[in-house]
Amino acid sequence: MTKMIPMTNVDRAQLRAFVCEGFEALGLTVEDAGIFADALIFSELRFHPGQGQGVARLRRYQERIGNGEVNPRAGWSLVKEGPALALVDAHNGIGTVAASKAMTLAIKKAKEGGIGTVIVRNSTHYGSSAVHACQALDHGCIGIAFTNAGPEMAPWGGREGVTGTNPWSIAAPSDQGFPTVLDIAITTAGKGMMNWLIREGKKMPLDWAITPDGHETDDPAAALKGPLLGIGGHKGYGLAFMTEALTGVLSGGGFGLTPYLTRIRRNWT
Amino acid sequence: MTKMIPMTNVDRAQLRAFVCEGFEALGLTVEDAGIFADALIFSELRFHPGQGQGVARLRRYQERIGNGEVNPRAGWSLVKEGPALALVDAHNGIGTVAASKAMTLAIKKAKEGGIGTVIVRNSTHYGSSAVHACQALDHGCIGIAFTNAGPEMAPWGGREGVTGTNPWSIAAPSDQGFPTVLDIAITTAGKGMMNWLIREGKKMPLDWAITPDGHETDDPAAALKGPLLGIGGHKGYGLAFMTEALTGVLSGGGFGLTPYLTRIRRNWT
Repeated sequence: MTKMIPMTNVDRAQLRAFVCEGFEALGLTVEDAGIFADALIFSELRFHPGQGQGVARLRRYQERIGNGEVNPRAGWSLVKEGPALALVDAHNGIGTVAASKAMTLAIKKAKEGGIGTVIVRNSTHYGSSAVHACQALDHGCIGIAFTNAGPEMAPWGGREGVTGTNPWSIAAPSDQGFPTVLDIAITTAGKGMMNWLIREGKKMPLDWAITPDGHETDDPAAALKGPLLGIGGHKGYGLAFMTEALTGVLSGGGFGLTPYLTRIRRNWT
Repeated sequence: MTKMIPMTNVDRAQLRAFVCEGFEALGLTVEDAGIFADALIFSELRFHPGQGQGVARLRRYQERIGNGEVNPRAGWSLVKEGPALALVDAHNGIGTVAASKAMTLAIKKAKEGGIGTVIVRNSTHYGSSAVHACQALDHGCIGIAFTNAGPEMAPWGGREGVTGTNPWSIAAPSDQGFPTVLDIAITTAGKGMMNWLIREGKKMPLDWAITPDGHETDDPAAALKGPLLGIGGHKGYGLAFMTEALTGVLSGGGFGLTPYLTRIRRNWT
């Protein structure tokens, strides 16, 4: 029998107040702290425990703000805007807040003209894609949200991560009382699920990840420092690759290895 | 060693003239016959032999026009139109021609306002997705084309096809002399590839398809009448499911089993 990840019950309002207070102390505006807290709690309440998003990441956000990787007061600027399209620069601000504001703008455009697309560049970790796609549901709209991410996925046949898990979410409203929501990484699985298998002492499917020197393995510990693999082999890599084109390349932001070269070089020396 | 599919060299201009003449004889206008011929030859020249698209399908198009499934003179009508969005009804006309004209309209909207989306309903077989996505490249645009299709993919854990292979293509121009083009079915493979394995006497990967009664198999012949499987298990089924939402459901056309119920009932009796 699968052991449960230890769970603690927390009052939602108390949790929100705690998260808001923390983010305000880290320098976020009251508005941005509220948007961020609501997004993390939405994620926490709906998604797979151990999948790596939600309130559990608070400490990592704190670290990144502390070491200057993320600017809690960056604000954002509209680089270009048309009736159905906008390009926004997030200036290394809070990715979740930037994505949330971008979807709010996209919904406004959709309500006015039928469709709206907002592209964000120079952003940071945006959390669960479904948080942003689901914003559209309350407005009777279909929401689509995707992002590129850190270079964890190997090209098909390769052995080094060059594209992200590049998660996509598509959320559609319905009149059946509940919406239909897809929220997936383009990789078969992620490091969080591999850590779970390690804790459980279980083997890993062969199509999840490979060893750092490029070998197939069913041992999650052997692949933990290796790259993840895409769904459907070359097909998942192709989807992740084109997601980089639709995000970092199209926006003029970072894509593939480029946002991480400083960190990679730091490990090399 | 893999045997080659028998190949015949044909002069491109002669092939185009032959295909155009055939489609005009079947009732298409000269303009539509030319669009259709160019699309089929584009597909024939670029894609995997045996993957089921291109000029090889001529006889099937002829059959469908002959039995009234496809109306060669349907024309199309604009149901709704805004600056960045349009909904078109293809009235069971030639799917490839409708998709090509839809992309032409989407490109026009993108050149005017930055982005354009055109949704086509009540259409028929549209061929290779890349044919339509690649139309955008000559205009310096990124092209995205996807469609729902006949119910060949089983839900995750299910044993009957309810969604299509639902192919996606994303094509991006580049300044490196060649574009980047993705063109994939959301299923792991297709019946054409399974027939290829049968001809070669080879085994099939377990994640391609299942037997009609829902069992795993590495024998392509045993799975040929069963449903196909999605890339990444539940993830591919989710992508195919949401593709139905973004196409047939959103447009008010057919989705899932609905366009095929007459044909399915015919087999039942």
